[in-house]
Amino acid sequence: MTGRLYGVGLGPGDPELLTLKAARLIAGASVVAYPALTGGASFARSIAAGLIPAGCREIVMDVPMTVERAPAQAAYDTGAEEIAAALESGADVVCLCEGDPFFYGSFMYLFARLSGRFEVEVVPGVTSVSACSARAGRPLVARNERLTVLPGPLPGAELRERIGGAEAVAILKVGRHMAKIRGVFAELGLLDKAVYVARVGLPDEVVCPLAQAPEAAPYFSMILMNRGDDPWL
Amino acid sequence: MTGRLYGVGLGPGDPELLTLKAARLIAGASVVAYPALTGGASFARSIAAGLIPAGCREIVMDVPMTVERAPAQAAYDTGAEEIAAALESGADVVCLCEGDPFFYGSFMYLFARLSGRFEVEVVPGVTSVSACSARAGRPLVARNERLTVLPGPLPGAELRERIGGAEAVAILKVGRHMAKIRGVFAELGLLDKAVYVARVGLPDEVVCPLAQAPEAAPYFSMILMNRGDDPWL
Ligand SMILES: C[S@@+](CC[C@H](N)C(=O)[O-])C[C@H]1O[C@@H](n2cnc3c(N)ncnc32)[C@H](O)[C@@H]1O
Ligand SMILES: C[S@@+](CC[C@H](N)C(=O)[O-])C[C@H]1O[C@@H](n2cnc3c(N)ncnc32)[C@H](O)[C@@H]1O
Repeated sequence: MTGRLYGVGLGPGDPELLTLKAARLIAGASVVAYPALTGGASFARSIAAGLIPAGCREIVMDVPMTVERAPAQAAYDTGAEEIAAALESGADVVCLCEGDPFFYGSFMYLFARLSGRFEVEVVPGVTSVSACSARAGRPLVARNERLTVLPGPLPGAELRERIGGAEAVAILKVGRHMAKIRGVFAELGLLDKAVYVARVGLPDEVVCPLAQAPEAAPYFSMILMNRGDDPWL
Repeated sequence: MTGRLYGVGLGPGDPELLTLKAARLIAGASVVAYPALTGGASFARSIAAGLIPAGCREIVMDVPMTVERAPAQAAYDTGAEEIAAALESGADVVCLCEGDPFFYGSFMYLFARLSGRFEVEVVPGVTSVSACSARAGRPLVARNERLTVLPGPLPGAELRERIGGAEAVAILKVGRHMAKIRGVFAELGLLDKAVYVARVGLPDEVVCPLAQAPEAAPYFSMILMNRGDDPWL
């Protein structure tokens, strides 16, 4: 009997935002797997740390943060083979994924490599978008509004077009793209409708109007905007 | 001392997809509040039923499902006043919200009425979009893809334009709009890229290609599409 691979969403950082199912699976795991920045800590592991049982085997994937895809691809190739060997030996493997695994999550790269060969179950998690909206006290979308989710690395012209045509927007992966993105909001006259949230649920969380956000935004930050013209709210 | 209002996301239906925080707040509540369809059951209450303590007071808001806004608006007005009275008496009130409260959630109508007068904390939850994507085994968005979330009641021409320009799409509130929405996917040549998920996490869950979905879709159903041309996946 081969084991089953679980891709488990952990939510955006606060350990209390794990689901009951995620907590049960991690607390009962004999093998966990997670990505870590080369030479650095694993954000995913830090969220789940209080639940990982003593003696649990840990498969760490060292993923380099480069613009080129090949080095990260190689790290997932290696990680997938290590996970496959554990599954073939009959163990279940619980893969720890920040936020929701299928919402811009790195678990997708393991899913693509292993779902044809093994049973895989994805356990959804709270996204960073939901958590940032909650902390900012700003509803994301109501009634028949449309929501557009955009990654910050997109070219400025594309961001301008997409944001200009949207009612509600969430922009992820802000980081070093802050100046470009804030410029787009200013040009569109939407600066006062947008809020910045960084490292939600962590001790150094920041929530403020986009106009006051730091130029050097961390990777774990986002911008939320809703034109807020629903007359019912 | 007035009490605090919690808007607590319950996830899309499976009671194990509550967060640890939601479970803690509900298990410790002295007053819970939730919407119910007039004369019918409350989906939110059913998700949390196993956690509501004996003797807990329950404030039920009977919300009529009409296209006009006034009757529902009146129900939230009445509910907000009942909740306000409980908060003023010093009790905390835990409002039960299906999915994530700020993602098309009805909690927004209470938030709009009460957040100026009382302390409000929103506890984010797993959205139906994350849960449907997990059950369908179909990643929502990867890398620099854009995600467009659209309500099914939008006019066909607008759906066509928005879906045509999107890489990844989630369409909520499908229900009786199925024929119109499926027609748009067919016209755009995207029928084979789209999946239908109904009542995820419940005993009568359905997951199938959009082409095979029933004409009479339930309200709790959605359509997911990703063009899936990321060469890395
Ligand atoms: C690769 S994506 C992963 C998203 C994650 N799977 C989710 O469901 O939220 C990383 C981006 O998510 C956002 N993010 C994740 N965690 C966050 C947090 N704690 N605070 C603010 N933004 C966060 C940031 O925009 C970050 O650049
Ligand atoms: C008013 S919105 C509420 C969304 C909710 N707040 C969330 O975060 O998912 C209702 C729509 O959500 C979707 N939905 C909610 N629960 C669902 C479920 N269990 N299965 C499929 N779709 C669901 C359906 O598209 C439904 O029409």
